[in-house]
Amino acid sequence: MGKLYVVGVGPGSPAGMTPAARAALKEADCICGYTVYTELLRPLFPDKEFYSTGMTGELARCRHCLSRAGAGERVALVCSGDAGVYGMAGPVLELSPEYPGAEIEIVPGVTAALAGGALLGAPLGHDFCVISLSDRLTEQALIEKRLRLAARGDFAICLYNPASKQRPDHLRRACEILLEEKPGETVCGLARCVGREGESWRVMDLKTLRDTPADMFTTVFIGSSQTRAVGGRMVTPRGYRG
Amino acid sequence: MGKLYVVGVGPGSPAGMTPAARAALKEADCICGYTVYTELLRPLFPDKEFYSTGMTGELARCRHCLSRAGAGERVALVCSGDAGVYGMAGPVLELSPEYPGAEIEIVPGVTAALAGGALLGAPLGHDFCVISLSDRLTEQALIEKRLRLAARGDFAICLYNPASKQRPDHLRRACEILLEEKPGETVCGLARCVGREGESWRVMDLKTLRDTPADMFTTVFIGSSQTRAVGGRMVTPRGYRG
Repeated sequence: MGKLYVVGVGPGSPAGMTPAARAALKEADCICGYTVYTELLRPLFPDKEFYSTGMTGELARCRHCLSRAGAGERVALVCSGDAGVYGMAGPVLELSPEYPGAEIEIVPGVTAALAGGALLGAPLGHDFCVISLSDRLTEQALIEKRLRLAARGDFAICLYNPASKQRPDHLRRACEILLEEKPGETVCGLARCVGREGESWRVMDLKTLRDTPADMFTTVFIGSSQTRAVGGRMVTPRGYRG
Repeated sequence: MGKLYVVGVGPGSPAGMTPAARAALKEADCICGYTVYTELLRPLFPDKEFYSTGMTGELARCRHCLSRAGAGERVALVCSGDAGVYGMAGPVLELSPEYPGAEIEIVPGVTAALAGGALLGAPLGHDFCVISLSDRLTEQALIEKRLRLAARGDFAICLYNPASKQRPDHLRRACEILLEEKPGETVCGLARCVGREGESWRVMDLKTLRDTPADMFTTVFIGSSQTRAVGGRMVTPRGYRG
């Protein structure tokens, strides 16, 4: 029987990829994914077949993998970070009833909220929300509603996809909404290119974040009312000292 | 200079621990942590010094590690799952100004939301909240407020610490609140002992979840309005097909 592994390969460097993920890639006949991620993996598996598509080819990529696994091959579909969080595990499982011959295994990975959080300190040390600012597949009104409710619940918030070439202003707009619900002094942070060349991070307040450029390699963290800057890092306490 | 690694060791099995985490444990002179986690690691590092404390000894454990790192030792403080998500990275950084000689590095790991999610399918495939039901360090009123707002924002929800010996009924109470905001047919799931002996998972609806026992080894997933059961698994679509 064929098998499709949907694999979260972590933030970028081999040191962040679990042995379970690595074993799945090693076992696969073919490694499929978005070009940026397969190019990061190619040096680790120089003898493998790779199959890459551009960013908007998600469903075609899933069908390609399911079809080959349904025909008896072992295929790994790779996702940056985790396989489930804005990843390919969802669409693969949604399409899977059309490909009954394919066994599917989801292999989790360290998503950007955790990897970027570790660089910044502990921004997600208490209850938190993860929200994508991409309106490619989600209504802008729903994104804005979630931002407001996350702020009213005093969650720490992690934002994915804060900007792209087509929508450079999404982070500014999100911050303006949050500033209606939270003080401008709220401790925030950015992490960029985590585990890759050019890795960087920065702690700032919400007012400053509003005017800070971000790109698709940036993960954004908004503190709760309890979040503090400690020694230059961002910490959301769980309450052990309170 | 001494160094303190705060290490997320993943859900339980060595296959889920990143090479970065393993390297930090290997480099450390001493591995510290809650007894349950250090006992899982002892077989992997039979020659290391281990230092364990019980569940409520968090601050003492952090101080012990900071003090030794401040005196020049290399120490690893281990957390189940991720180092930041309800982990020790927060209290270590909060206490760190008292121990200026200790360099601190946070090593992220696969938290239960991701590991349990992969077993169930893709419950966190779109925007989600993570909420702990433990009222040991958080007011019950704030927990309930967050549950309601997460439901009103139609987030997928992941619940940590759904029960303990002292509070067996927290999951029932949480479900009753969610049932005031969401239909009883909402797709939900449980994962238990992920990556360890006795691993299990189950998909069910919110009404059934209310009457289902959970323990401290269980992670709970509540779907959004878009979450579906597909082939017995739990999938929250991102919207690629919508």
